[in-house]
Amino acid sequence: MTASLSPDMFHAECPTTVMPFQIGDKWTAMVVLCLEHGPRRFSQLRVPLRTISAKVLSETLRAMERDGLVTRAAYDENPPRVEYSLTPLGRSLLTLVDAARAWCAEHMDDLLAARAASTARLS
Amino acid sequence: MTASLSPDMFHAECPTTVMPFQIGDKWTAMVVLCLEHGPRRFSQLRVPLRTISAKVLSETLRAMERDGLVTRAAYDENPPRVEYSLTPLGRSLLTLVDAARAWCAEHMDDLLAARAASTARLS
Repeated sequence: MTASLSPDMFHAECPTTVMPFQIGDKWTAMVVLCLEHGPRRFSQLRVPLRTISAKVLSETLRAMERDGLVTRAAYDENPPRVEYSLTPLGRSLLTLVDAARAWCAEHMDDLLAARAASTARLS
Repeated sequence: MTASLSPDMFHAECPTTVMPFQIGDKWTAMVVLCLEHGPRRFSQLRVPLRTISAKVLSETLRAMERDGLVTRAAYDENPPRVEYSLTPLGRSLLTLVDAARAWCAEHMDDLLAARAASTARLS
């Protein structure tokens, strides 16, 4: 059994819509982070991603599988078990995701302050 | 007078649609790179970005200005001159853009090979 992921893994105050960059489409970087410490089942991935729909998570995983970032293993159990893992290529994105996180930690307040000041000027 | 940017600054074979990550919306990382070595005029930015429309470049620059990544300086000349420059915050994104470029240089072939193999399997 794989360990659960925390529902608070991603800050609610730091939505990806605010980030000035993203890995892949909106969710790819977060899926990479969720798989950093081992394989996860579909339902486990939905916990920290919260607002993601089953359809979008499924599409995201399929696109990542197509690009060789993730592998999907189906186990013939009852109920059937399907697990997703990072490939070495997917794992190589962790460096980039970490660089993005470091940028956020250092500069996100400045970006949000600039945005708030600009909004105040325009209204 | 600022130096011109090369129309071949970005590889045609490496479209951002293929990259598994992007900085901001589709164009932000490329604008950051274009401004790395000094201020540029609107028309100068359109040269290396090629397929970008005036409307989209204008929206991209406005969003970057709003987020404090870029400043816009208008000079009262004839014809009027407007130049865009990176702020220190915008310049801080260069580290991230460089990390993204390094990832591309090292891993893009693997991603494209995985995608081609996947397409071949499905057709």
